[in-house]
Parts: sequence; structure tokens; C-alpha cells
Amino acid sequence: MPTQTQYGLMSHEELVAEHERQSANYERLKSEKLTLDLTRGKPSPEQLDLSAELLSLPGADDFRDGSGTDTRNYGGLTGLPELRAIFAELLNIPVENLVAGNNASLEIMHDLVVWSLLHGTVDSPRPWSQESVVKFLCPAPGYDRHFAITESLGIEMIPVPLREDGPDVRFIADLVANDPQIKGMWAVPTYSNPTGAVYSEEVARELVSMPTAAPDFRIFWDNAYAVHPLTEHLAPAIDILGLAAQAGHPNRVFALASTSKITFAGSGVSFFGSSTENLTWYQKYLGIKTIGPDKVNQLRHLRFFRDADGVRAHMATHREILAPKFALVRRILEERLGTSKVASWTEPEGGYFISLDVVEGTAARVIALAKEAGIALTGAGSAFPYKKDPEDKNIRLAPSFPSLGELEKAMDGVATCVLLAAAEKALADK
Amino acid sequence: MPTQTQYGLMSHEELVAEHERQSANYERLKSEKLTLDLTRGKPSPEQLDLSAELLSLPGADDFRDGSGTDTRNYGGLTGLPELRAIFAELLNIPVENLVAGNNASLEIMHDLVVWSLLHGTVDSPRPWSQESVVKFLCPAPGYDRHFAITESLGIEMIPVPLREDGPDVRFIADLVANDPQIKGMWAVPTYSNPTGAVYSEEVARELVSMPTAAPDFRIFWDNAYAVHPLTEHLAPAIDILGLAAQAGHPNRVFALASTSKITFAGSGVSFFGSSTENLTWYQKYLGIKTIGPDKVNQLRHLRFFRDADGVRAHMATHREILAPKFALVRRILEERLGTSKVASWTEPEGGYFISLDVVEGTAARVIALAKEAGIALTGAGSAFPYKKDPEDKNIRLAPSFPSLGELEKAMDGVATCVLLAAAEKALADK
Repeated sequence: MPTQTQYGLMSHEELVAEHERQSANYERLKSEKLTLDLTRGKPSPEQLDLSAELLSLPGADDFRDGSGTDTRNYGGLTGLPELRAIFAELLNIPVENLVAGNNASLEIMHDLVVWSLLHGTVDSPRPWSQESVVKFLCPAPGYDRHFAITESLGIEMIPVPLREDGPDVRFIADLVANDPQIKGMWAVPTYSNPTGAVYSEEVARELVSMPTAAPDFRIFWDNAYAVHPLTEHLAPAIDILGLAAQAGHPNRVFALASTSKITFAGSGVSFFGSSTENLTWYQKYLGIKTIGPDKVNQLRHLRFFRDADGVRAHMATHREILAPKFALVRRILEERLGTSKVASWTEPEGGYFISLDVVEGTAARVIALAKEAGIALTGAGSAFPYKKDPEDKNIRLAPSFPSLGELEKAMDGVATCVLLAAAEKALADK
Repeated sequence: MPTQTQYGLMSHEELVAEHERQSANYERLKSEKLTLDLTRGKPSPEQLDLSAELLSLPGADDFRDGSGTDTRNYGGLTGLPELRAIFAELLNIPVENLVAGNNASLEIMHDLVVWSLLHGTVDSPRPWSQESVVKFLCPAPGYDRHFAITESLGIEMIPVPLREDGPDVRFIADLVANDPQIKGMWAVPTYSNPTGAVYSEEVARELVSMPTAAPDFRIFWDNAYAVHPLTEHLAPAIDILGLAAQAGHPNRVFALASTSKITFAGSGVSFFGSSTENLTWYQKYLGIKTIGPDKVNQLRHLRFFRDADGVRAHMATHREILAPKFALVRRILEERLGTSKVASWTEPEGGYFISLDVVEGTAARVIALAKEAGIALTGAGSAFPYKKDPEDKNIRLAPSFPSLGELEKAMDGVATCVLLAAAEKALADK
């Protein structure tokens, strides 16, 4: 965040004039009666069209995988080996440590927390629900649906500063070394939601190596954007299970991924990677709630991708659609907010979001102004535990779904709201 | 069960001779070196072929449902209205009270129990996990996977006698009126697993009407075989939600169903029906673990079925494959075990199983003998809570998966094992 905005340097009269200018801009914006939505990281219809083949796959008479399994019938908790092999390569996880599931990795995370609460992990002295308090570390800004799981299950959330190369590991190491109630941590290691942060291998190594007071500390390594670069260069997937094993903490990592933002957002395949011991534990409880995942959908994805290079080539086509949208958002932010210095924003090299920081104390106001002008933004504070942005300055922008034309209008409108809120604030602070 | 078998009337000498005969039969059976499997209620490949169209549905460019929803994208916790309407008609549940999910209704049941434990139902004074003990009534013989959910979650299971028209309601009413720890009950109301019992409307009415000491008593009404008759006559679906509402207990029923044994066993669609209040409660927690079900798979099923009559016509084609298998099992049981009266069995008019009762104290022995002869049967006691068949006499037969030829061999072998075990027992008892 800029420490001194242009507004801060203005005289009272200049500010009054600026506020009038921005108010007039805002009235013009409202008169356009827009209905635009930047709330969620949804793929656009054009992106979904890239996977159109899936609508008629696997195709007539194609229902057996390479091992001869009839995918139409019951059974098989681990998912199709050939599809697991493709994502094992992409996620840098041994295939024997990676299983494939249904359409939501969120569901796997939810189950993992629930079973840890009800039964305890393989390293737990007792079920988490029998602890007086269970706490999770939450790098923030982060993914609101992660925080919703822990909040819903009564787990206390501790915000952790997130930097460009991952969370503040010194801060974390101090906490976990001394507090046995800290049982877990959320993480989006690649092109993090919403800042685009990419965990460095050094940060990853420290996270899996640090001593923890809880013997059953777990990192929920949600690699949701593992293959989602916005540039030619893909951040390599860290061998997180290998690092954890080397550090003597083989069971510390629960790794997750899915094809939700690769194929169809609602109809993809999820993946869970972990130590053999953790997978055995997981499947013991998984087998109670299901006879197996949708294997036909896994076969459909296998036929569509063919191999890891197929996924990479497919992601390049997504990039062609997404990169211009991100560039557009940056251009408008720079043009409209660059000189006044009332905002700063991330320039992610992958993923689905841009994290916009506005003048402290104005994020909720910006979002309310935008809403009144017909532009839906993610709720204030949603990237923070308990939806509480301590500085009320963060706004998550999701540029993927709207068309370029809509996005331009929406971002221009957002910039107008940011400037008006900043002028209001500066005036009030004078 | 016959009270007096032919063996019971034999002299010692006659029994020794009979035992020798059956031993010789069994040795011949073993020499055939069979590998046959009657363990699970899996559809046969021929049945799965009936839904072959699904392998290329919904088809190119077909991804919007009737309300214009792009099924490929995120969102929508309730599932596609048109598909829900089809099953609303078949299940006799108002469409607004029925939601469609992923491939496993077992998962919905698991979630319902878990959320009742962690959060309590809408009528619970506190989460079930805060009760000293939680108990479920388990009509038995019943579905082993139901019992596995409650056992895994530490819920005490009370077996309840199951009759041809449903469980013993007098027995149940007495228990639930006086024990507030009894929070739930498993039920398979139509063509019950494994006996084929069909709950009468009278039994259903009593179950939803009876006073319960627990204000949050729930009936898990798993109508897994609602449209699965083996004859021309389909047992009508009881308006269970309506009966419960009339009786003043609108929230008592959690109704479940799925297409697992209609289309592809591993890749179908599940359904959950309940009161508006219960559905709101369910979706509140469902929205924490998923952004929505696989709507493309729901669209696929909608295109395949078209309407409720489409489902009925499809089930008639299943019946053509299944009915001869059930007839074959009955014929062999009658031919081989009819005169000796060492066994009795159900003659289900629908569903997937035949429940075979052998001489008391010999079921485990029969299953072991069959296993040694290469015929896999469902584990002893598996249809009872804690896998404990109090009389060691019940065997669940699943005739659907093997071909007619395999089934004939397997059932003939089973009969041989039943006779040998009965002769052994009679000899030991002399």
C-alpha cells in the first residue's frame, strides 16, 4: 500500500473539488445501470467451450480403463490409475500417493477436517473434537471457502501474513512450536487465491520441517492452480510430500487439486495426495460414505487429456482467454489509479484473482458503492478469517467470467468507486 | 425357518449316511475349482449396457437445462429442476422437497448423520455428539453399509425385527417413546435389502406418527429400490413426507434414493427429499463442503430418461434381465433344499437380494464351505448390526451380477454347502 496518496497531499479546497469530480463520475456510472459480476472465480463460457468434447466422451462402448476395470460399475476408492498418473506428473506427487475423487476437492478437505475431528488423524493422541480448542493457521488474504470450513466446524482461525513467496514462516514456526492446539494450516501454494503468491521451495521446506507442538499438525496444501499460469512460464510444482518425508514428517501434508478450472467447473475430478499411512486412514473412512467415485467421469477426463502434455496444451488455450482479461484489469487500474496512488494491486503470474488493496478503511465502502452501481464484488473481508479484514482495505477481483467488454466497464466502474471512497475518506480525515 | 428339518427326524445311522453323501457332493464341488461371486448387489454388464447412451450424452453443444443454467459451471446446490421433477413423481415427493446430488446417496446419509452429530438437527436441543449416547434402530436383516455408518460414528445400534410389511412397529414405538437417546432409524421401505420386505402404508404411518422421547428423531427412508420391481406390479411409493407432516412431525423423515441401480452403479445421481426446514439446514452445511453437484451428469440423466415414463420403461428392461436370475435361484433352492427343509428364503417382488435362512448356527459354516469351494458369499452376519447374526442363520444372496450359467453353478454349490453344514450340525446335535 502507498503510504502517502496524492489525496493526502491536497489542500481542503482541492479535496472538496476532487470529491465533487469523483461524485459526478459516480453518478454517471450509476446512470449506466450496469449489471456486472466480479464476485467468483468462475470460468467464462468460452473457457468451458474448450472442453466441449467432454460432453460426448467417453463415447459409445468406451467404458473400460487400461487395467480392464468396467468404470460403469461400483467400486474402487482410489480412482483410475491412468488419470492419477497424469496428475501425479503435473502435481509432482508419486502416483501411488495420489487418489482421484468426485467433482469437488473442497469436499475432500471438508471430509479430512471432519474425520480428524471425529476420529483423529493417524498421529492424533485423541480426536480433535476432544481437544478444548482446535486452531488453524490461515494465511490471509486467502480462500474464503477454506475459512468457511474451519469456521463452520468451530475451529479457531489465526490469520498469518501472506507474502509473495508464501506465508511468514518465522511467524508460523514460533506459533506452532509452542501451541499444541494449532492442528492445521490452510495453504494455496501456487498462484494463491487471491494474491497470486507462489510459495517458494524454501518456504515449503520450512513449513514441512518446523517442529510443531501438535504431533498431528496438518498442512492443507490446496494446489488448486497448479497448472494455471498466465505467462509462458509455469511455476514448478514443489515435491511437497518428498520434502515432508525427508524432514521426518511424512504425514504432515494433505495435498489437494482438481480439474474444476481445467475442464468443467462443476463436473471435474478432484485429487488427494498424501503419505501411504494418511491415504489408508482416508480410505478407511471414505469407504464408509461411498462405494467409490464417479469413474466414468474420470475415464471421460482421461480420454480428453490423454496425457500430462494434453493438460498443458489445454491450459495454454485457457491462458489465451484469461491473460488478456488480467492485462485489461491491470491497464485500467494503472490508468485510473496509478497517479493518485490510492490503491495497489497484485500482478499475478497465474491463477484466477487479483488482490486489490484500496485506502485503509474504504474497502467495504468501495464494495457498497459498486453494488449500488450494479457491479457485484466479492463481499468485504471475504478473503480473511471470519470475513474480518483488519484494515478494511482488501478487495478480491475475479476477472475470469465477464467478457472483455463487460470487464472493461466493470473495472472502470470499480476504479471510480475506489477514487470516490478515497476522496470521501481523505475529506473526513482532514 | 422350518422348526423341524428332515435331518432332525433321521436316526444316527441315517444321518451318518446323509453326511457322507453331502461330503462327497462337496468334494465334487471343490474339484470344479469355481471362482464365482455372489457378494454384492452389483448390476451385471448386460444391465449396464442398457444405459450405453449415457456414454455419449448430453452430446455436443448440449449443456443448458430448461431454465437456461449452464450445467458446466459452478453453482446450484439443489440440482437440475427437470431431473428432480422426474424423480419427484417416481418417489412421490414434491419437487420442491427433493434435491439431486452426486453419485452416492450413501454420502448424503453419511453427511446427514455427521452434521447431526456436529451441529444437531433443526429440532435438536444440542448436537448429537454432546449426548452421552446416541442410538439408532436397525431393522434387521438390513443393509450393511447403513450399519457401517452408524458403527463408524460410534452410534449404538439396536436391532429391530423386520417383517414382510416392514419393521415391528409396536416394538419400535415402545422403545422410542421412552428412550430419548434413540435419535434415528434406518429403513429401506421398498424391496428391502436383503429380504425384499415392502413397508405397508400402515407401518409407514405409524413410524411417522408415533410419539418419540427424542424431539429430533429421524427416519432415514432409503428408497434405493423404489422403481425396481421384479414383477409387472410396482409397489407404489408411499407419500412419506406428506404422512409425516399430517402426523405433526414434518421433519422426521430424511428420504434418499439414487439411480445407482438404474443407470451406472458408480456414476449415477442421488436424491434427498425432506421438509423445507430440513432442506434449508442440509444446504447450509452442504454449501460448506461443495459448490454444487455434478450438473452435467444430471443433464446427461435428464436427456437419457426424458421423463418418469422413460425411467419406468428403462426399469422394465432391467427386469427382463433380473427376473430370470431370481427365478433361477428360487428354482435351485426349491429343488435342492425344498424337501429337506434345512433352509427357507424370501421371494422378493423387487430389489436386488434374496435372504436365505439356513439351519441355526450354520450360516458362518456355509459361507466358509462356499469360500473354500470358490464361491464368495457376503460375510456372515453382514446384514445385522455389528455383523452379529444372533442365530447365525442368515445369508444374503446377490444374484444380479453373475451370468445365468455362473449363477446356476454358484447356487447349486451354495445348496451343497447348506446341506453339508446342516448334516454336520444335526450329527453334532444327536
